[in-house]
Amino acid sequence: MMAPLAERLAIKNDRRIIFLVLDGLGDLPFGSRAQTPLEAARKPNIDALLPQACTGLFDPVEPGITPGSGPGHLGLFGYDPREHEIGRGVLEALGIDFPLTDDDVAGRFNFCTLDARRQITDRRAGRISDDENRRVVAKLNANLRADRPVEVIVRSVSEHRGLVVLRGPNLGGRVTDTDPQATSVAPLTAKGLDSASAGAAECLNHFVAQAERILQDEPKVNGILLRGIDKKPPIPKLSDRFALTPAAIATYPMYRGIARLVGMTIFDPPTDIASTVSAAAAAPAQFDYLFLHVKYTDKAGEDGDYDRKVAVIEEVDGQLPVLMKARPDVMVITGDHSTPAALKSHSWHPVPALLFAPGTVRPDGSKTFGERAAQMGGLGRFPMRHLLPLALAHAQKLAKFGA
Amino acid sequence: MMAPLAERLAIKNDRRIIFLVLDGLGDLPFGSRAQTPLEAARKPNIDALLPQACTGLFDPVEPGITPGSGPGHLGLFGYDPREHEIGRGVLEALGIDFPLTDDDVAGRFNFCTLDARRQITDRRAGRISDDENRRVVAKLNANLRADRPVEVIVRSVSEHRGLVVLRGPNLGGRVTDTDPQATSVAPLTAKGLDSASAGAAECLNHFVAQAERILQDEPKVNGILLRGIDKKPPIPKLSDRFALTPAAIATYPMYRGIARLVGMTIFDPPTDIASTVSAAAAAPAQFDYLFLHVKYTDKAGEDGDYDRKVAVIEEVDGQLPVLMKARPDVMVITGDHSTPAALKSHSWHPVPALLFAPGTVRPDGSKTFGERAAQMGGLGRFPMRHLLPLALAHAQKLAKFGA
Repeated sequence: MMAPLAERLAIKNDRRIIFLVLDGLGDLPFGSRAQTPLEAARKPNIDALLPQACTGLFDPVEPGITPGSGPGHLGLFGYDPREHEIGRGVLEALGIDFPLTDDDVAGRFNFCTLDARRQITDRRAGRISDDENRRVVAKLNANLRADRPVEVIVRSVSEHRGLVVLRGPNLGGRVTDTDPQATSVAPLTAKGLDSASAGAAECLNHFVAQAERILQDEPKVNGILLRGIDKKPPIPKLSDRFALTPAAIATYPMYRGIARLVGMTIFDPPTDIASTVSAAAAAPAQFDYLFLHVKYTDKAGEDGDYDRKVAVIEEVDGQLPVLMKARPDVMVITGDHSTPAALKSHSWHPVPALLFAPGTVRPDGSKTFGERAAQMGGLGRFPMRHLLPLALAHAQKLAKFGA
Repeated sequence: MMAPLAERLAIKNDRRIIFLVLDGLGDLPFGSRAQTPLEAARKPNIDALLPQACTGLFDPVEPGITPGSGPGHLGLFGYDPREHEIGRGVLEALGIDFPLTDDDVAGRFNFCTLDARRQITDRRAGRISDDENRRVVAKLNANLRADRPVEVIVRSVSEHRGLVVLRGPNLGGRVTDTDPQATSVAPLTAKGLDSASAGAAECLNHFVAQAERILQDEPKVNGILLRGIDKKPPIPKLSDRFALTPAAIATYPMYRGIARLVGMTIFDPPTDIASTVSAAAAAPAQFDYLFLHVKYTDKAGEDGDYDRKVAVIEEVDGQLPVLMKARPDVMVITGDHSTPAALKSHSWHPVPALLFAPGTVRPDGSKTFGERAAQMGGLGRFPMRHLLPLALAHAQKLAKFGA
């Protein structure tokens, strides 16, 4: 695939772009509420940007496709999420701030319950508590024998979920799942999909066998089901692609992890919306791209809590004057995907985006920032990966194409 | 890359399509003016087309990308500008009506000033006058020795800019620049990027050495910096692609040159807007595609002259009744890119287009022709290369796809 033109044309200047990302921002009307949370929220500060802004709708991947957090954010950062798939194991590692190296192989696992014939009776081991998870993981780490040149590292994630990392020379990451996604059958055997991955598959099968032996006296938590085994994908750095000096400000580790994956400098984690925007306001001038991540819109959507989602958007609006102290030349307010409260999950609905760029924008006359208003906005309707190049253009960070 | 469907489906009929191209038409509000020049212009004749027209916004290349004149016009003519890049030397040759052959290698050059150690002290030789340029070019042409089977042709362009053309057998055009884009360093040596281009690089290095010898007594103009060396790109003809018999009416040579590059018949250059439209009105019926180019909108934009841009649009509107004598079945009014007066340069903003097609159009109810109205127009928002197929469709020049 041809590299995007924006890569060829990117030029350095000192104009600053801010991406204020409200996770799962897009939504639907809900029950008797005819408006979406974004439409319903009182947001005088965002509205005040509109005379120097235009809006549009962006599809995170392509029409009808619901993205996970990885593809959603890759799109925001100007990557085609279909070209750079991040394995679930890698994402779990990012999500617990595990310092994954380029050579590590990471797999997510579920603890499960096996019967005497080694058949799965519960794929989630009764959804054990985080504490119980940590107890079992400690027991594993204390007793696993590394009888190879490969180190096996086990980490708790939450409930029945864990992470296993293989660290050693020449490990391939193309290994099949051992989770059969069914009960009353035995776990599968991991297989390497290429010769470089056969060794990793063997290590993982050995790890599973050892774990079953170590946990054989546990009543519930006595098996391991592996999924999403992979290495970190080779993703070109944002700084190399677009001549940016990018930084990320995110409370939750997964988003810092994805930002680290594309080469951003990671600021100290803020604890809430107020500390997120004040960290941006204090960011050194060298950072000409700031990614701010607000998780709480997504959480409210996942919980089906329409009113809380409205409240989060209003809180973000209330903090906007602080954010403006970061002096953005271009500011984008958008989400990585939709998380409609009515669906309590990520969805495929296109995401509204507002692009504020005094002096270089063609204001589209929007009277409000919302999903339906954005349908008629001047940014149009594009795959999300075009939004960053649009921001670069408005910051005059793209040279002319051709003479 | 897959050929556009429109190529496969094109059929010949006697319906006429006119593309009235106002260069750099798209714009922004400007200072206290809340409207763009197109929105502000009084244009009763264009407005009278609206009941039989629809409008839309077109991205010359892709969102955020600012095109030069070459890519802008290739998009208008239904080409993907990313697939056919025209080198700067070729464009300069087109721009001075130089009769470039398919085998010529063309490079643009700057006259520069070199010091006694052959380091560049001024990359533009003090921006000499056109007259001074012509004097020095004449001196070069009088003294250059063609001691090879390759002819070296030098032409004035303007100020410090010139054109050099190599004409001879088996010359490749993939040659690197000699302009280091810096001062206090020596010019670079041209290098061929493939074996076919090594000979051309050698000829160009020899030309530069000869030129420095010929100009050694000149106080300011004593060096040559080459850029954008290339051959004419192999672009399929418009007539072959879409079964059209196209003609171009353009005052400025570069636009005639690009039209010639895609195989159009070139009419005698008109001198102004009135003679442009009257040439169209007098065009023989065999020409079923007429490209009319009006440069003055772009010039006004480049000069930051909002009012002049409004006036040019109003002048074009005033000439529209004459143009209608050319009996277009389909008429498109658009630009090749935006040139906002506020930015004084080409920009990435999408270009408004109006498609008039009595009997075959679905009128979109537009009340005016302008950037913001076109956001909601029936043509939608597409890359510019789709506009010509849309015009072909409305002229019923495209057969059905599939049974």
